[in-house]
Amino acid sequence: MDKALEGIVVLDLGQIYNGPYCSLMLAYQGAKVIKVESLEGENLRVRRIGDCHELLMLNSNKLGVSLNLKSEKGKSIFTDLVKKADIIVENFALGTMEKLGLGYEELKKINPGLIYATGKGYGLDGPYAERPAMDLTIQAMGGVMATTGFPDKPPVKAGPAIADFLGGIHLFGGITTALYQREKTGKGQLVEVSMHDTVYPILASALGAFYNTNGKVPERTGNQHSGMATSPYNVYRTEDGYIAIICVVNRQWESLVKVMGREELLEDSRFKTNVDRSAHIEVVDEIISSWTKGLKKLDIAEKLIKANVPHAPVSSIPEVADDPHLKYRQMIREVEHPNAGKIRVPGSPIRLSDSPLDHVFAAPLLGQHTDQVLTEFLQMSKKDLTKLREENVIR
Amino acid sequence: MDKALEGIVVLDLGQIYNGPYCSLMLAYQGAKVIKVESLEGENLRVRRIGDCHELLMLNSNKLGVSLNLKSEKGKSIFTDLVKKADIIVENFALGTMEKLGLGYEELKKINPGLIYATGKGYGLDGPYAERPAMDLTIQAMGGVMATTGFPDKPPVKAGPAIADFLGGIHLFGGITTALYQREKTGKGQLVEVSMHDTVYPILASALGAFYNTNGKVPERTGNQHSGMATSPYNVYRTEDGYIAIICVVNRQWESLVKVMGREELLEDSRFKTNVDRSAHIEVVDEIISSWTKGLKKLDIAEKLIKANVPHAPVSSIPEVADDPHLKYRQMIREVEHPNAGKIRVPGSPIRLSDSPLDHVFAAPLLGQHTDQVLTEFLQMSKKDLTKLREENVIR
Repeated sequence: MDKALEGIVVLDLGQIYNGPYCSLMLAYQGAKVIKVESLEGENLRVRRIGDCHELLMLNSNKLGVSLNLKSEKGKSIFTDLVKKADIIVENFALGTMEKLGLGYEELKKINPGLIYATGKGYGLDGPYAERPAMDLTIQAMGGVMATTGFPDKPPVKAGPAIADFLGGIHLFGGITTALYQREKTGKGQLVEVSMHDTVYPILASALGAFYNTNGKVPERTGNQHSGMATSPYNVYRTEDGYIAIICVVNRQWESLVKVMGREELLEDSRFKTNVDRSAHIEVVDEIISSWTKGLKKLDIAEKLIKANVPHAPVSSIPEVADDPHLKYRQMIREVEHPNAGKIRVPGSPIRLSDSPLDHVFAAPLLGQHTDQVLTEFLQMSKKDLTKLREENVIR
Repeated sequence: MDKALEGIVVLDLGQIYNGPYCSLMLAYQGAKVIKVESLEGENLRVRRIGDCHELLMLNSNKLGVSLNLKSEKGKSIFTDLVKKADIIVENFALGTMEKLGLGYEELKKINPGLIYATGKGYGLDGPYAERPAMDLTIQAMGGVMATTGFPDKPPVKAGPAIADFLGGIHLFGGITTALYQREKTGKGQLVEVSMHDTVYPILASALGAFYNTNGKVPERTGNQHSGMATSPYNVYRTEDGYIAIICVVNRQWESLVKVMGREELLEDSRFKTNVDRSAHIEVVDEIISSWTKGLKKLDIAEKLIKANVPHAPVSSIPEVADDPHLKYRQMIREVEHPNAGKIRVPGSPIRLSDSPLDHVFAAPLLGQHTDQVLTEFLQMSKKDLTKLREENVIR
């Protein structure tokens, strides 16, 4: 069975997380992704000696080409590749590709079918467009930090690089939409995603609380409900960690009360409905904490599974790295890497029944497929390649 | 100009954030999205009396149909609509559609071209599949909480509902990929996204730190770098709030030192390189804090813009809600709603040059377009509609 993006050629200039995650999803759907790096390698390679795990996680199923885009010969090889490509993915700082003479306006002249996808911190235009942007600064500017953490403590970033990844996956969605449109029009186009834009809709709960209550709820509520309007809804300390528990309907509260052996609470008018419980959040949380603190998180989880009460243990990173469900679903896969040996890389969160991810291979070494790609796409000879290598055009 | 998804018909059974955000992106790219709700409305309508802002944010550009899928007539109307649809989006609890007799296996028989997109907490299979899942529990189970917050404080959720939104946007990417594949094969397929899967790759920094250092760095590092390997990298208290500052290259550190008027630090061997500074993170942070605490966050930002040092003020929700950059980029748009009046809704973070988002209209009232849709798609008469309404099949 052909995969969804079989036959599609991607030139991936992505670095760190945003662009590489986007093109990882393209590769996982069957596109031929050529990761084009400078002679030194992309930022993640430079940042840490050796093969850092972040790079290995996000570059499976790609071919690696190392090409000096600052040299005239390197540019010319790149534009020759552009003629044979369907998609370019890049998330350089604003203006980088234009300075190289490789901006969309130039490239579309040589390939009108090209889909040029650009991931930026603040987008291509607007008052902040020129500012340097990283995941941390976008989380600060975009309201993610204001809404994360405890109300009496400083704002804190979301641990994962959510701005980078939201940027990358929106870019993927834009590219596949443009591919579909190209089937109708025969034309490529520019696809643009600003990380700062992507973190705005995800503030739904906070913006909802702000507009619904005229700003009367705190910006951040720790692990409690953003609108302080659901109870129980919190993370509770256990003997060996933490557990999240929520009751969205009364039946779940009743089950929880029974599991805790506190049936007398069913008669208490403070806890009859969610509205009642939300008016007594501190009391509800205290009752639950006093029960969880003497038990182990997985023992509590087992009881709550049986009682059908929504919950989850707060998993540590070693627990996530070994999660049996993620393994079952092949979200954790083991591949062999020439230097790093057996490593664990993610599978695809996007599952298409007619485009299964059957084969995953490890991220390329820097320039691992330079010769293969230039031979296959541009019919270069061994002599050509040796000369280009001597001239510091390829690696 | 035709928009990318012009002519595509979507039956949107989404609720809360995950499904609705997915179909909002489909609507913004030009698909005709029919939001199908029960006679009471989806969860967000039931949860709060009136038109809650979260619902208004995520359902622009959709038509609203209210249909009783538990009645035989309602089911039959739905399957008649399925025959004319390209896409179904649903994020009900596992098995809900199957119990209604409207699972993918049934629906593909009546429309083999149908793309059936299902957003789930833990996916369709695996050891956790049956567990109830919400954004909070997925953040707990998936490692988001473990990595968020200060190392000496409890784990805390990311404020935004990132599992819901990551789920929704991956689902969008899966649907558009399947649309492209359908152009080649003529066939529809099942698209599945598990929220739990989507939060695994975004742990890149934490998994990197875990595998690169054999678990020697703390799981969460507050606002400091996940690997404690970049300095300055933190959020600093100011006179009126907080500001995030990062230096990734020495030039930026040198600029920062000059802005602070602390040129003597340039000669200090503790701060020469990023490696030196990372070995003295606490000292570096103390130096910067002692400067920021006496200044206002936007005054600091202005100085750092001029000095080209990566930074961002930590914006409050009211500041985000009025952000001039988001307004310039039309990520904040004003639309007129019959009950709520002028409201602010998000634009599209996915920008296609040949498929611009020119017109945004407000989320439908419950059942606002029931008659229009059933007349247009199923040629129903006024008499048919009156009868169905009397029988509690539509609203």
